[in-house]
Amino acid sequence: MSTEKKIARVVIIGGGFAGLNCAKALQKAAVEITIVDRKNHHLFQPLLYQVATATLAPSNIAQPIRSILRDYENVRVILDEVTGFDLQASRVQLGSGTTIEYDYLVVASGSTHSYFGHNEWERFAPGLKTVEDAIEIRKQIFLAFERAERQMLDHGSHDPLVFVVIGGGPTGVELAGAIADTAKIFLRKDYRLCKPCDARILLIESLDKILGPYPQKLSESALEQLQELGVEVLLGTKVEDVQDHCVITDKGRYDASVIIWAAGVAASPLGKMLGEVDRRGCVMVDQYLNPRSPHPTKNIYVLGDLAHFEQDGKQVPGVAQTAIQMGNYTARAIACDLRGEQRPQFRYFDKGEMATIGRAKAVAQLKWPFKADLTGLPAWLSWLLIHILFLVGLKNRLIVLLQWMWTFFSKRWGVGLITFEGNVKPEDRDR
Amino acid sequence: MSTEKKIARVVIIGGGFAGLNCAKALQKAAVEITIVDRKNHHLFQPLLYQVATATLAPSNIAQPIRSILRDYENVRVILDEVTGFDLQASRVQLGSGTTIEYDYLVVASGSTHSYFGHNEWERFAPGLKTVEDAIEIRKQIFLAFERAERQMLDHGSHDPLVFVVIGGGPTGVELAGAIADTAKIFLRKDYRLCKPCDARILLIESLDKILGPYPQKLSESALEQLQELGVEVLLGTKVEDVQDHCVITDKGRYDASVIIWAAGVAASPLGKMLGEVDRRGCVMVDQYLNPRSPHPTKNIYVLGDLAHFEQDGKQVPGVAQTAIQMGNYTARAIACDLRGEQRPQFRYFDKGEMATIGRAKAVAQLKWPFKADLTGLPAWLSWLLIHILFLVGLKNRLIVLLQWMWTFFSKRWGVGLITFEGNVKPEDRDR
Repeated sequence: MSTEKKIARVVIIGGGFAGLNCAKALQKAAVEITIVDRKNHHLFQPLLYQVATATLAPSNIAQPIRSILRDYENVRVILDEVTGFDLQASRVQLGSGTTIEYDYLVVASGSTHSYFGHNEWERFAPGLKTVEDAIEIRKQIFLAFERAERQMLDHGSHDPLVFVVIGGGPTGVELAGAIADTAKIFLRKDYRLCKPCDARILLIESLDKILGPYPQKLSESALEQLQELGVEVLLGTKVEDVQDHCVITDKGRYDASVIIWAAGVAASPLGKMLGEVDRRGCVMVDQYLNPRSPHPTKNIYVLGDLAHFEQDGKQVPGVAQTAIQMGNYTARAIACDLRGEQRPQFRYFDKGEMATIGRAKAVAQLKWPFKADLTGLPAWLSWLLIHILFLVGLKNRLIVLLQWMWTFFSKRWGVGLITFEGNVKPEDRDR
Repeated sequence: MSTEKKIARVVIIGGGFAGLNCAKALQKAAVEITIVDRKNHHLFQPLLYQVATATLAPSNIAQPIRSILRDYENVRVILDEVTGFDLQASRVQLGSGTTIEYDYLVVASGSTHSYFGHNEWERFAPGLKTVEDAIEIRKQIFLAFERAERQMLDHGSHDPLVFVVIGGGPTGVELAGAIADTAKIFLRKDYRLCKPCDARILLIESLDKILGPYPQKLSESALEQLQELGVEVLLGTKVEDVQDHCVITDKGRYDASVIIWAAGVAASPLGKMLGEVDRRGCVMVDQYLNPRSPHPTKNIYVLGDLAHFEQDGKQVPGVAQTAIQMGNYTARAIACDLRGEQRPQFRYFDKGEMATIGRAKAVAQLKWPFKADLTGLPAWLSWLLIHILFLVGLKNRLIVLLQWMWTFFSKRWGVGLITFEGNVKPEDRDR
C-alpha cells in the first residue's frame, strides 16, 4: 500500500445481490476490493424457477461475476470457498490455503435449503438455490414425462404423473404454477402417447394460507389463480417424511414422480463464526449491519440473507430488494468511515412484494412508486417489467424478453434440455 | 394397424441431422415413425465449439427433438438407448427392455471420440461431441484462468497457462482459434492479477498440414490465420502419450493446463450389429444406403456418420451436409418403396466446406451456388450466414445472431458459466 494515500482493503464474501451492489457502489472510494465466491457467477435468483421449468436458460440469469465487474478496476474476483476467519488478525481463510487481510469485511454469503434437521430428505426432494439445482430439477421434471411416454409404448399405461412442491412461499407458488403451465399448456402437442395435461400438481403448505407474509386478499387470490391452473393446494398439511418418490404428511401419503423442496432456508454456516445468530443461523446485526455481539465491530458488515435485521420490531424479509439496499448502504457506510464521518443508520425501504403464478397470472403488493394491491394480468405485467429492468446487462434483458415473448405467444417451452453425464441412466429410465 | 390402408412402421435411431431430416421428409408418407435417441435433444454440432469456448449457451444450439417435431403428427419420440437388433424378427431392443417392431429401420446413431485404443487418455483430454462435453471443456478452460488468478493472489506467480488441442481437423482448428480469441481478446479486461493474453495455445497435428482434406491453399491460409492469432501449430507431431496435464509427443513433452482431444472419431457401436464395417466401425453401404453385406436388405438404411459411402472412388465426408442429404434421400427411398416404385440411387452433392478460425477469420471452399475459395473476412461472413440459416428455429437464429453481434462488437465472452455439482472442488482448485 502506498504511504501517500491509504487504500483500504475491503473483502466481500459472496457475489449475490448484496455483495455485488456493495462492490459496485464502492467504485469511486479509495478502496481495493476482493470479492470471494465459490461460484463464478452472480445469479438472478428471482427467475431461477424459470430455469427449473425450462422457460429460460441458465445463462440468461447467471453471469460471471468477473464479467459484470470487468470495468470496475478496483475490484478483483477470486473463485474460492471461505473456510473461516481470524477476526483478531483481520484475515479471511480460503479453501486453497490462502489468507486475505482486510480493513473492512463484508459477509454476504447468503442462505441454502434447510430440511429442518432431515438432511436425508434432500436426495428425494431437491431444493432450488443454485443453477445446478435448477438444471437437476429441470431434468427430473422432463424425465418424468419421457418415462411416461416410454411406459405407454411398452405397455400402454404409465405411472401417474404427480409433481409435489413442498412449501407455499413465493418459490413454491411460482414453481407449482410454472409446472402446471408446462404440463397443461406448453407440452400439449409434444407427446403422442401420454397426456401431460393429466398430470397432478400438488402444493403442500403447513400453514393455512400460501404466501404467508402477503396480505390476506393477495394470498387468497394466489390460491384461486393456482387452482384455476389445476394446482391442488393442500393447506394446513404437515410433511412428516420424504422418501423415494413419496411424501408422507399428517393428512395422508402422496406418491410422486418428482418432489421439490421449497419449504425452508438456513443461513450460510459462516454466520455463526461472526457473532450471535438466530435459529436459522442468521447473524443478529445492529442498525449499521455490524454483528451485535459478542461486541460490535465497525469494520465487519453482515448483509443480505445472512443478516437478521429488525426494523420497527419486525425482521426485514430475505428478498433481493433487501440485499441490494444493504449492499448499497454498506458501501456508503464504509465510505463515510474512511472519510472519518459519522455513518448513517440502515433503513429498509419496502417497495412491495410480488410473485407470478403462471402465464398472465400473478399477485403484487406495490408500495412504491405508488401503493396498490394487484392480481392477475396487471400484477403479471408489473412483475415482468420489474424483472426485466433488474436483470444484469442489456444483452440478457433482450434475450429474456425474446424468450418470454416466444413462450407467451407460441405457448411452447423454451429450453427443455435434459443433460446428464453419459446417456440415459437406469435410474432415470425407470424408477 | 388398420387393414384398410397399410401404415408402414419406420424406426429411426438417432435424432441428429440424418435422423431428424429423414423424419421431417416423411411427414406426408403413409408411415408411423418412432425416433429413438439416448439424448432428448438434437444438437447443431458445427457450433458446439462455441459452447465449449463460452460464446454460445447450450440451449442456443441444442433443442429437444420432441419440440422440433411437435407438429409432425406421425412421429413419436422415445428417449432410450438402443441395445441391439433382432433383424430376423424386425425388432429393435431398447435399454428399458421394450422392443419396437419396424417395417423400415433407419440407423443414424452417429459417431463418438476415438482415442485409437488409448481410452485411458479420455480422463485427461476430453473430446467434444455432446453438450455435456462442451460444458466440461468450458469448465476446464475457465477454471484454468481462475486458478491462475488465485495463485497470483497467493504467491504472486502462477503455473503457465497452456491449452493444448490435439488434432488439426476442423474441430481442432476452430477450438484452437476460439481459445486464442478468448485468451487474447475477450478476457483482456477480466483479470486483475494474471494475464490471460500470455496463455500459450498449442495445436498438435500428426500430418504436415492442418485441415487435411482441404485444398493446399486454404490449409496454408488457415495456418497463417491461426498463427496471427498466436496459436502455435505443431505439424508432423505425433502424440505418444496423454497424462494428467501433460502431452508427450515424438517431438517433446508439453505440460498443459487443459488438453482437448479433437483427433479421432469412431462410429457408434451399433454399426457392427448391422453389417460389414470399416476400420472406424462405419457400416459399408451400397448406392441405396443399405448395408452391403452380409446381404443387402431393402428395409435397413444406415445414414450419416455411421455410414461408409463411396462415390467416385472416394468416401464422402462425415459432415452435416452429408447427413442431411442422406436423411432426405432415405425418406424419398422409403416413399418410393411404399408406392412400389424403383428407388433412386443416393448421390452426394458437395456444396463445399468451411471452418472458422477466429473473430473475422475463416477459410471456405464453396462449390455451390458458385465455386470459390475464400479466406479471411469473406470466408467468415459466408460461414456466419450459412450457420445462421441452418440453425433450427427462428428463435434460436435470433438469439445466436444477437450473441454473435454482442461478442463481436463488445469483444467480450458471452456465456462463461462454470457449473459443477456443489462448490469449488479440491481437484478444480489446484492441480
